[in-house]
Amino acid sequence: MRATFIYAAGDVRVTDAPDPELVEPSDALVQVTRACVCGSDLHPYRSAPEKPRGTSIGHELIGVVTDVGPEVKTLTKGDFVIAPFAISCGVCEFCRAGLQTSCVNGGFWNDADLGTAGCQAEAVRVPLADGTMVKVPGVDPATADEGLLASLLTLSDVYGTGWHAAHRAGVTAGDTVAVIGDGAVGLLAVLSANQLGAERIILMGRHEARTNLGREFGATDVVAERGQDGINAVLELTKGGAAKVLEAVGHLPAYEQAVGIVRSGGVISRVGVPQYQNGPIGWSFFGKNTTLTGGPAPVRAYIEQLLPAVLDGTFNPGKVFDRTVSIEDTPQGYAAMDAREALKVMIKP
Amino acid sequence: MRATFIYAAGDVRVTDAPDPELVEPSDALVQVTRACVCGSDLHPYRSAPEKPRGTSIGHELIGVVTDVGPEVKTLTKGDFVIAPFAISCGVCEFCRAGLQTSCVNGGFWNDADLGTAGCQAEAVRVPLADGTMVKVPGVDPATADEGLLASLLTLSDVYGTGWHAAHRAGVTAGDTVAVIGDGAVGLLAVLSANQLGAERIILMGRHEARTNLGREFGATDVVAERGQDGINAVLELTKGGAAKVLEAVGHLPAYEQAVGIVRSGGVISRVGVPQYQNGPIGWSFFGKNTTLTGGPAPVRAYIEQLLPAVLDGTFNPGKVFDRTVSIEDTPQGYAAMDAREALKVMIKP
Repeated sequence: MRATFIYAAGDVRVTDAPDPELVEPSDALVQVTRACVCGSDLHPYRSAPEKPRGTSIGHELIGVVTDVGPEVKTLTKGDFVIAPFAISCGVCEFCRAGLQTSCVNGGFWNDADLGTAGCQAEAVRVPLADGTMVKVPGVDPATADEGLLASLLTLSDVYGTGWHAAHRAGVTAGDTVAVIGDGAVGLLAVLSANQLGAERIILMGRHEARTNLGREFGATDVVAERGQDGINAVLELTKGGAAKVLEAVGHLPAYEQAVGIVRSGGVISRVGVPQYQNGPIGWSFFGKNTTLTGGPAPVRAYIEQLLPAVLDGTFNPGKVFDRTVSIEDTPQGYAAMDAREALKVMIKP
Repeated sequence: MRATFIYAAGDVRVTDAPDPELVEPSDALVQVTRACVCGSDLHPYRSAPEKPRGTSIGHELIGVVTDVGPEVKTLTKGDFVIAPFAISCGVCEFCRAGLQTSCVNGGFWNDADLGTAGCQAEAVRVPLADGTMVKVPGVDPATADEGLLASLLTLSDVYGTGWHAAHRAGVTAGDTVAVIGDGAVGLLAVLSANQLGAERIILMGRHEARTNLGREFGATDVVAERGQDGINAVLELTKGGAAKVLEAVGHLPAYEQAVGIVRSGGVISRVGVPQYQNGPIGWSFFGKNTTLTGGPAPVRAYIEQLLPAVLDGTFNPGKVFDRTVSIEDTPQGYAAMDAREALKVMIKP
């Protein structure tokens, strides 16, 4: 089969790779219907050290089950499935608590312990198949609408991650919410805040095509300024700060912006993987009784809840995809996202 | 009257000061029945720059109302009251939300904007008297039991602060809670976690007299080790970390300890004023979906709730006081707390 590897910063290639095989009795094999490039894939794309044999990459997919191990109970050959970015057993303390990203038996794609590869590929082995994947009922991927497939694909990561930001912030009816970042996750955090009943949603971003989609998803205000100017603009709009701040970037200035705009007693919910170790949590944060929450999204916990409104077309999170490439053109997809020419790139193996 | 001032690190003196007077129509004057020295007073005691005219100090008191301004409605001359460490109006957005430390009209003791002095003194002016103070019904301070007075005094700060730590962490029945710090606030965080139904309470502290009081307040385990040894001990006791960690110290190593012992998906609730600006909030924190909360305690929000069980003797938070000094001996009280010879010092004007 064909699969994507990263060899160094900026060096992504599609090459031949062995077809995946069942290893553990709880495994499934999945033929990838759609995969995609994630904003978080851009971190290694910008900084990965050179690796002559390459590193398998990709962690978002929808696909069709082609084989299952003897212990798999909930899935069978031919099922159309969503596979989230975390592998999870579904039965441990953390899975039962809805925190599948902390599963004691699970892990991630391209995980040495689990022997998984990345999923920007034609097929993948999925360990702990019952716990990890969710069957999509009543959809035939061969004939399904492209927009529906795109929206289902967002449930593997970016929609669930935006939802996690809003959910962990405790967004509720009537809230004023600020969302930092106009990438796919930020925009879907806007959609999620909207679904949860937020009255005012301020999107901080400066790419007009993206913030326009943000408005379509429910943003009531857009603040293009950054740094202290951006903070001042939000403080003025909200007369003192937003009660819920969703940080969907992962760089320190975004977090600092969050601390600057959060209202006394408010919540900062981060879902952008922090590209820093230390940040301000002293008096500027503590004095306001700020709460900081968030983390890698347990997307698996949210799929069943979010699926119905995707299937019936109430919400169309798949609009974040603005480019589709063949598996062979995956490197061009990375380059387009890196250059911000594309918001999010879908891969059609 | 006599009042306490700090002139430099280690230099606390009691001197003559003008008697307080009513300034605003919402003011009250209070004769101090008991004041005390707070762990947080030790920060300036250890580091205050030299100030020839001195700085008025103290922020915890119980006392008797001696006069009220014409707008004061809920209090009258002769009332026995608790005054928390924050001055609050009781009617703004934040006071109504129970976050009186963010009151838009209020402030603190020795606050230039409010013209308040510190309250390690014979008498004080209390602005926004209706919002700030709580009347204690049925107690005559002249004849009341010393233990009861001590417990009532803790409601002005340390008990409410320990309660805030546990409350903001969401401690509930059956929880495993770790408390970092065996000062008065840490010990009262133990008591609070116990009141809220925690099943296991691990107290991290190494002063045996204090940790013994912690056991009396409900600690089920004591961990004396610090740093990585302390982290390892808690991880072993809890098989992977405590779901709720209450940090009652305020120094960076205590916060780092909290990050090390918090369970995946758990909460760190800080009430020790952080003596640092930046701290670890990168992957070690984010990867576990940790929540960080807490801040200056809105003690005022908790007094009515905590008062009945203090009045009827169910709980005796006043046991944290292990020394009483006259107002003239306040400097010796500071020295004893600084040297850790005393846990908490009461001042009897």
